[in-house]
Amino acid sequence: METLRTMILATGLLFLVGEAAAQDAGMKAWVKGKGWGWVWGPQDEVGNLNEMTDASRLAALRLVSQGKAYDLGLPYDRNSFRWPGHSPAEIISFRSPHGVKTQKDLPFTTPEGGNGGGTAWHSNAIFMNDNVATQIDGLGHITHGPDNHFYNGFKADEWGGDFGLRKTDVTTIPPIIARGVMIDVATYKNVEALPGGYEITVADLEGALRAQNVDVTPGSVVLVRTGTARYWGENGSDHAKLAAHDTAGIGLAAAKWLVEQKGALILGSDTSSLEYGPAKPEDSQAYGGSFVPVHVYLLVEQGVHVMEFNNLEGLAADRVYEFAYFLTTNAIRGTVAGTALRPVAMR
Amino acid sequence: METLRTMILATGLLFLVGEAAAQDAGMKAWVKGKGWGWVWGPQDEVGNLNEMTDASRLAALRLVSQGKAYDLGLPYDRNSFRWPGHSPAEIISFRSPHGVKTQKDLPFTTPEGGNGGGTAWHSNAIFMNDNVATQIDGLGHITHGPDNHFYNGFKADEWGGDFGLRKTDVTTIPPIIARGVMIDVATYKNVEALPGGYEITVADLEGALRAQNVDVTPGSVVLVRTGTARYWGENGSDHAKLAAHDTAGIGLAAAKWLVEQKGALILGSDTSSLEYGPAKPEDSQAYGGSFVPVHVYLLVEQGVHVMEFNNLEGLAADRVYEFAYFLTTNAIRGTVAGTALRPVAMR
Amino acid sequence: METLRTMILATGLLFLVGEAAAQDAGMKAWVKGKGWGWVWGPQDEVGNLNEMTDASRLAALRLVSQGKAYDLGLPYDRNSFRWPGHSPAEIISFRSPHGVKTQKDLPFTTPEGGNGGGTAWHSNAIFMNDNVATQIDGLGHITHGPDNHFYNGFKADEWGGDFGLRKTDVTTIPPIIARGVMIDVATYKNVEALPGGYEITVADLEGALRAQNVDVTPGSVVLVRTGTARYWGENGSDHAKLAAHDTAGIGLAAAKWLVEQKGALILGSDTSSLEYGPAKPEDSQAYGGSFVPVHVYLLVEQGVHVMEFNNLEGLAADRVYEFAYFLTTNAIRGTVAGTALRPVAMR
Amino acid sequence: METLRTMILATGLLFLVGEAAAQDAGMKAWVKGKGWGWVWGPQDEVGNLNEMTDASRLAALRLVSQGKAYDLGLPYDRNSFRWPGHSPAEIISFRSPHGVKTQKDLPFTTPEGGNGGGTAWHSNAIFMNDNVATQIDGLGHITHGPDNHFYNGFKADEWGGDFGLRKTDVTTIPPIIARGVMIDVATYKNVEALPGGYEITVADLEGALRAQNVDVTPGSVVLVRTGTARYWGENGSDHAKLAAHDTAGIGLAAAKWLVEQKGALILGSDTSSLEYGPAKPEDSQAYGGSFVPVHVYLLVEQGVHVMEFNNLEGLAADRVYEFAYFLTTNAIRGTVAGTALRPVAMR
Repeated sequence: METLRTMILATGLLFLVGEAAAQDAGMKAWVKGKGWGWVWGPQDEVGNLNEMTDASRLAALRLVSQGKAYDLGLPYDRNSFRWPGHSPAEIISFRSPHGVKTQKDLPFTTPEGGNGGGTAWHSNAIFMNDNVATQIDGLGHITHGPDNHFYNGFKADEWGGDFGLRKTDVTTIPPIIARGVMIDVATYKNVEALPGGYEITVADLEGALRAQNVDVTPGSVVLVRTGTARYWGENGSDHAKLAAHDTAGIGLAAAKWLVEQKGALILGSDTSSLEYGPAKPEDSQAYGGSFVPVHVYLLVEQGVHVMEFNNLEGLAADRVYEFAYFLTTNAIRGTVAGTALRPVAMR
Repeated sequence: METLRTMILATGLLFLVGEAAAQDAGMKAWVKGKGWGWVWGPQDEVGNLNEMTDASRLAALRLVSQGKAYDLGLPYDRNSFRWPGHSPAEIISFRSPHGVKTQKDLPFTTPEGGNGGGTAWHSNAIFMNDNVATQIDGLGHITHGPDNHFYNGFKADEWGGDFGLRKTDVTTIPPIIARGVMIDVATYKNVEALPGGYEITVADLEGALRAQNVDVTPGSVVLVRTGTARYWGENGSDHAKLAAHDTAGIGLAAAKWLVEQKGALILGSDTSSLEYGPAKPEDSQAYGGSFVPVHVYLLVEQGVHVMEFNNLEGLAADRVYEFAYFLTTNAIRGTVAGTALRPVAMR
Repeated sequence: METLRTMILATGLLFLVGEAAAQDAGMKAWVKGKGWGWVWGPQDEVGNLNEMTDASRLAALRLVSQGKAYDLGLPYDRNSFRWPGHSPAEIISFRSPHGVKTQKDLPFTTPEGGNGGGTAWHSNAIFMNDNVATQIDGLGHITHGPDNHFYNGFKADEWGGDFGLRKTDVTTIPPIIARGVMIDVATYKNVEALPGGYEITVADLEGALRAQNVDVTPGSVVLVRTGTARYWGENGSDHAKLAAHDTAGIGLAAAKWLVEQKGALILGSDTSSLEYGPAKPEDSQAYGGSFVPVHVYLLVEQGVHVMEFNNLEGLAADRVYEFAYFLTTNAIRGTVAGTALRPVAMR
Repeated sequence: METLRTMILATGLLFLVGEAAAQDAGMKAWVKGKGWGWVWGPQDEVGNLNEMTDASRLAALRLVSQGKAYDLGLPYDRNSFRWPGHSPAEIISFRSPHGVKTQKDLPFTTPEGGNGGGTAWHSNAIFMNDNVATQIDGLGHITHGPDNHFYNGFKADEWGGDFGLRKTDVTTIPPIIARGVMIDVATYKNVEALPGGYEITVADLEGALRAQNVDVTPGSVVLVRTGTARYWGENGSDHAKLAAHDTAGIGLAAAKWLVEQKGALILGSDTSSLEYGPAKPEDSQAYGGSFVPVHVYLLVEQGVHVMEFNNLEGLAADRVYEFAYFLTTNAIRGTVAGTALRPVAMR
């Protein structure tokens, strides 16, 4: 990969590559059979989201014929299911009308300070992880190798820091407006939700797409439904039920097919990790025994973002398989992922 | 207000009011000269965002002719300007490749545990306030009166709690897709940015709209530009410069004109508080000496959300005054505002 | 209680009471058969710790004949057992040598800024509850009644606030230097640790004291050993084992005997709550169905502090039953308890 | 230093060194003219606190003749002065009687759940740095060199981690009971407080000790008074006043004299950093341009702990120069320092 990039840089071939790729379905750099990779220049932090253009955004919006909006976010609180390796959450009433009036630390809030009408306010202090609930993994979330490199060869030793990532943090993810496709594997397999550990195959995806009569075209956001999020409820507090299904997901074969054969812009699902787990030896060994080979493939190698814990229940109920997809992340510098987001699907 | 609601409830007039209001510009409940108020039923937590319909969303999207997207979010970090009454922010590297490999607390991350390829990850712990950077104030953010009531008569004593708001928290704010209008008062007044404390008048708004050749139609998101956000830079760290302009904004007169005469769906600006400050006696005394009379009027009385610290610099540079506006909030239960958001304007 | 205080205040009897009490074992206000109560004046935040004097401290130190010190603290971290109603803990590397040198946010830390030798530092951000591990409950920790009053009639509505307690916070607890007595009930009952829910009776305490040949004299810190802390280990991570014993403790009868008959200055144990649980009806109904009647009795009514999760294993192993006890709390304003403390017993 | 240790280890001379040192004033390893160093074995995390013995603790307690206790802690809150490189503090009411009763998340707290008497509680969530207010720096707080080593050659790359230090964290600091000496330089120089940047010299220390008629004997905790803490008040909120004096302190010459000639067990002061600053070239260049050369000398090289922000005002007012010193740290694993502590001086 490094060699390829060095070659490209040395010969000024980058735009040439882009133009060649453009032969494939109007994409700038995607090559069928290869996908992307580190093809956007040595300083790039955006990855394949560079494919988005005014034209692609406009085309996505043109898919909307009704104006109906589906909220794909799952509400998060202190009791919500999360990967146990992440920090817990507390949303704590920081200022409250009662507390403001008792504390009397700000003169303008007191009757003596003029506030006879008793205006006050609520605000909260949030303590939480940047990688929970409905989330988009930034390209620096996962590292690989003894040199701890991430997308485009950036290294943790150089671009990590005490206050988060200094390359490919969440602020580098542009607003995402694109065609979206939902692949309802749970319904295709005729189950409420896929069982934990189930590897979604290419055949499953092809079958479901055929049943839905929709296709993944290059540049589409692809959301794969396992059915897990149907058990989220108000706040994801039924950990046992969620855990029983949360490890269903795609494997390397399906990920590669979606990226390299179909040109998927983003891969997402309704689980915490997109990929099935634990990884079977053939997937794991592709990346030296990795516990998240699909993440390494997508984020580190391909520059393809990963969306997790999307609420696809509304789309499934209404059999909506193609839509305009809209997502913006938080704007918190250093964070590795957009967290507790609310993407929207419109039709 | 209470009397009105009681009357409406007592006589089953709510839908009738809605139908009467529908005579005004296709809105459900807006009445010219009155605006909204607590007209959506006693359990309502959504306020005037109930006006949005499939048709209004579709109409907003139809405004897009180019597909160009403007990110209206201001990136936030530990050094960013914020109202000093809010809690500070730290984004702290929680897990890092270096730390994961040193800590050795998770067997599957170690070479002995199979991870010979050295996959690892970055994540952050976030400690921050729910009311900073680009934000939308929920209807329970501000309370008023000795009974600490907020929108629709909900009382803090009943609906506050240790873990944030239990009514009108941020998850009750639906995805906002609507026509947007930017009123560039700074350019109209021929200044880089309005001076601190400047009250934007109705005449200012009318003059700027005339100069821009655009109007506020009922149901439009209205963003008023003071120019303050031009000094935000990478992360809002120039506190002195920002503070010198941040207190410019609209007063009660302009707020009422926008809501009651023009039917503005949301009022926003590029400052931390939307309204000018400190409030002059005539505004302050309208609400018993309140330090934020415009907030009380909009959030508590009218059920109109407030957008703060929007980055309007790109729109101003391109002279974009009418656009499709798109915003989704965080999905964190109990929080009073969408925080560190990235709204998008599309044309 | 209020009536008594009003009477005392009205007639200036406070010091008289003190003097009368002084007849009992050299104490200032303790009355055998009654204990203390709200007897220290209407502004008092110290409770019965007012009994400590230069003379009592000196006498305690004179008990030390060897100079051996026992650390009674239990180390706390993110994995430690705690009452589930408290907030979780994260100790997060905030600045690290690696992070400081990567982040480059402070010029004086860089080689270019003069730091050629590469000095750097570690510090941590702590997120935790103020009521965990080895702790002393302040007199405002527990409230009772519809008026939410705590010790001395202070009311939460008046003296709570957004930033913790404004009366009887931890900074009002003076350094505690006093005679200490450990009552090893586990050894007396010939078990490794008492079973969960076991109520330690007066007979148990009397029997153990007799076996140990030591007595509780007025003004003594009393630490009751259930054996639970023997399962704490490095960091209290064996939640199941700890939970199986943690609910053993004293009931109202034993608490009253220790305070009213023996004049105990502080009551402590090696569990998270001192008292057995769940409370039997006779104990619970003494305080309107309270889930922590012993806490209400001690903290609210008597002004006696409560010590929890003391590590008594070293004292038990060495059969040390009488010692000089030394404790200082954190100095964090507003906090309701000294938390993650390390009291010391010296003999 | 490494060479010395290697030699010692290779020849088994460690205890021999100890015995030789014992000739110096009854200390185990201290050598007059040299101090300590990495002399306690390759796994040692305690440093020169290994000098404390039952006999030395008993001797310290024997200094107490009155029983009077001085609290040397400075109360800390969200507004307190701190080194700006540390994270800020919030003490946030986590559970309050009002919030518990409004939130209704725990059935046993409700009247329906049996709690007719209305028992409730206060607790706080703490977010703070582990290196603020009255604090003792652990031996791993400061690192030096391109290899980021700390005391005893432990390296950050090996012994740091995501959750704090894994060597020499605060739990390795034993309870400190020792003779204490306060050197009141401010009074000796006849000022309220030394000016910022002032370097306390050996002559200053000798002069003050002579005036006080007291000496530093090997094994004494030494607290140097600049007068800065007299401006702390309730919570250290007068940042300007504190900052004007806070940078007074000892330099390398005084530190070496205290450690190598006098055998000081701990060096402390009433400022945030003990040492004067910014360091003059002769001090800074001794450690490659270090911004904290005295810290490097004490913590990294000598294994001598550093005490900061002690409240010495009470001792100064009463002219108490010799006392029994008592300190225990927090018991929070991974933290690099005891923070917001309350040491006690007794006479």
